[in-house]
Amino acid sequence: MRMYDLIQKKRNKEELSNEEIEYMINHYVSGEIPDYQMSAMLMAIFFNGMNDREISTMTNAMAKSGDMVDLSSIEGIKVDKHSTGGVGDKTTLIIAPIVAYYGVKVAKMSGRGLGHTGGTVDKMEAIPGLRTNFSQEEFFDIVNKTGISVIGQSGNLAPADKKLYALRDVTATVESIPLIASSIMSKKLAAGSDCILLDVKTGNGAFMKNLDDSISLAQKMVTIGENCGRKMVALITDMDIPLGNNIGNSLEIVEVIDTLNGKGPKDLTDLCIKLAGNMLYLANKGTIEECENMAKQAIENGYAIKKLIEMVEAQGGDIQYIKNPNKFTKSKYSLDIVLEEDVQGYINYMDTEGLGIASTMLGAGRETKEDSIDFSAGIVLNKKVGDKVKKGDILCTLYTNDYNRIENARNKVKNSIIVRENKPKEIPLVFARVEKDKLQKF
Amino acid sequence: MRMYDLIQKKRNKEELSNEEIEYMINHYVSGEIPDYQMSAMLMAIFFNGMNDREISTMTNAMAKSGDMVDLSSIEGIKVDKHSTGGVGDKTTLIIAPIVAYYGVKVAKMSGRGLGHTGGTVDKMEAIPGLRTNFSQEEFFDIVNKTGISVIGQSGNLAPADKKLYALRDVTATVESIPLIASSIMSKKLAAGSDCILLDVKTGNGAFMKNLDDSISLAQKMVTIGENCGRKMVALITDMDIPLGNNIGNSLEIVEVIDTLNGKGPKDLTDLCIKLAGNMLYLANKGTIEECENMAKQAIENGYAIKKLIEMVEAQGGDIQYIKNPNKFTKSKYSLDIVLEEDVQGYINYMDTEGLGIASTMLGAGRETKEDSIDFSAGIVLNKKVGDKVKKGDILCTLYTNDYNRIENARNKVKNSIIVRENKPKEIPLVFARVEKDKLQKF
Repeated sequence: MRMYDLIQKKRNKEELSNEEIEYMINHYVSGEIPDYQMSAMLMAIFFNGMNDREISTMTNAMAKSGDMVDLSSIEGIKVDKHSTGGVGDKTTLIIAPIVAYYGVKVAKMSGRGLGHTGGTVDKMEAIPGLRTNFSQEEFFDIVNKTGISVIGQSGNLAPADKKLYALRDVTATVESIPLIASSIMSKKLAAGSDCILLDVKTGNGAFMKNLDDSISLAQKMVTIGENCGRKMVALITDMDIPLGNNIGNSLEIVEVIDTLNGKGPKDLTDLCIKLAGNMLYLANKGTIEECENMAKQAIENGYAIKKLIEMVEAQGGDIQYIKNPNKFTKSKYSLDIVLEEDVQGYINYMDTEGLGIASTMLGAGRETKEDSIDFSAGIVLNKKVGDKVKKGDILCTLYTNDYNRIENARNKVKNSIIVRENKPKEIPLVFARVEKDKLQKF
Repeated sequence: MRMYDLIQKKRNKEELSNEEIEYMINHYVSGEIPDYQMSAMLMAIFFNGMNDREISTMTNAMAKSGDMVDLSSIEGIKVDKHSTGGVGDKTTLIIAPIVAYYGVKVAKMSGRGLGHTGGTVDKMEAIPGLRTNFSQEEFFDIVNKTGISVIGQSGNLAPADKKLYALRDVTATVESIPLIASSIMSKKLAAGSDCILLDVKTGNGAFMKNLDDSISLAQKMVTIGENCGRKMVALITDMDIPLGNNIGNSLEIVEVIDTLNGKGPKDLTDLCIKLAGNMLYLANKGTIEECENMAKQAIENGYAIKKLIEMVEAQGGDIQYIKNPNKFTKSKYSLDIVLEEDVQGYINYMDTEGLGIASTMLGAGRETKEDSIDFSAGIVLNKKVGDKVKKGDILCTLYTNDYNRIENARNKVKNSIIVRENKPKEIPLVFARVEKDKLQKF
């Protein structure tokens, strides 16, 4: 077999066989296929795509290029959840305790943030004492004991994806649905859960800017997972507006605690009930309606917040911060962004990516992998899209420990919020739901 | 400027600016742009093409990446001719003496053969004593004295093309009209002639298998040349049948001599008159008809063969071989290929590439760059497409000095000739002619 012939086939819109795809992935990881051939192949895939069989085979080969985590020592059904990344997205820390309360196991390896979106592991580390690095044995023990553990990605998970992603990143081949789908799903398959809920974000703050592409991506990922023996659901959810009101690590943890105490913002609470409901559904706990009701109850009866406290304790975190979120250190500096123009109207548009970038500018995120994080930096939104505003209203408040960062962030935020006279159309939280051979649009 | 952005632009079907193209070529040659980015770009060009401005700018940058040969010390109009490569194509050695007789200068650097097509320089070296390696000064002297010299490619001509071609060759990006056009034309521009005649072969023995692609390629090359200040004509000529009857180095030299003596095969003679006519036309010697008549006369009056003798002598070759072609050593072994089937009909099809490969198998060409050549090996066709044949007829004769090579070549040749009852449609020698903003189909 020669890589040349495989490139030529894909270039000519022919299908690659399973053997050819496995040859390509294995020999690329081993270094026998050079980058310059793989990048030509990636560009050919960008133009000519891959069918479901090809994507599934490629994803499986990528997953198997490294460790395949064996969760069989954890009892019960293990459900994983993946979000394609959004601004203010702290859902994992809300829904994992909810489903764990019902006996569904969440053994989750999560990423750190880079660029305008935050990472769950970074947010968790805002809780003093909390560790996210555990041996596999300790990790399994925590899950068996509390039903839930979220740790940082470790080990040699899908090295093929790591190598391919680095190449795509410098050859303008990132924005390809088969390549995005195989990248995400290879890591999810290697992580070992039985069921996977995908939260595919769509809108100006997401990787996928339009609904059709988001649905296509969701369908590809559901197909890959099902072809590889996992039970799959994907929700396509809005990222034209930041999720909840708080952006930034400890600010988001406070909002997580509020939400689990039943006092969270409506959009965040509603979405978490839908996500948790679908995870319970994947674990065969009932119909979607029944499962969503169960999720609501876990918040109302206070059991979900107890689960979060259990997990924080098991991972070494100081649970007093969860019981009394006022303990979180406030940042040294804050600045209210006030509507200065003499207008009366509604917030029509928020540049969600812009707000994510502004939050990073304030110190809440990393611009490069080496940057450290200011846990108390970020933005608290006082008004969101659809809210009525007039001159003098506080739109949001910026927080940082580095005064020099505030001016740039302020300009970025001001440019990210647009007020107009007319009330904008309401945007649904969930646009669509994808299950095997099934698409519902809302 | 970042190569990433250029790849993304081309991927998104946007135009690259002249500055961007020059940056890309210069930084690729210098090694600052890695192969893996260039191969992604080449694949993006394969899919999205380049407009005339982009191709011209790229070709010019490729030409200027190395030596630009300065022919100004040679008096008069210098005309170059390039063939995209065919089987049995010995036209250069026939038409160069014809046009040189009329004072048109031919200072030609020519390639060696590889694969199924032969190279002019290899064929010339079948003449005992003849040298094809000269210093630039000696080369210019010969052209000034005799009007003509053909030598091997030397120096640092278009190194960008060399590097790009090597990459295309392993990334399935050879078959792209803008890339083929820029590759050929970058070397022609660097070689320094004022006018360039392109002989674009089409058919089963050629690089371009169909007429439309051949015309597109010819038009692109003519446009590039004109944009870079050269006077251009391209003929699209047939390569569904080998040119002339002889394939192989000294066999082809004998056919060259026969043709210049007015005793050549009709197809070869007619094509050479058309090619030489167009070269004279490029040098402003008259209308096409006048120029073609001049070419005929140069053969009839014996002046063209005298020019060939002058050139062979100037390059150190033994002119007795030209005066008496019987002196060329015959190969040790020969084998007639006889029509064994009991059929009566016409040769309908010749796999020209197959015959070229068979000739290489007999020793007439190189399979790798390191192979040496058996000058007397090859094939002499006794019948060609359209000829009536019956059982027992000799179709062709194979020649070689290595008996072990004959069996494989015999099978290849037998499979390359198809006889059917019906007389096939006659194929024109020249399908089309391209000049600046002008396309004639015949």
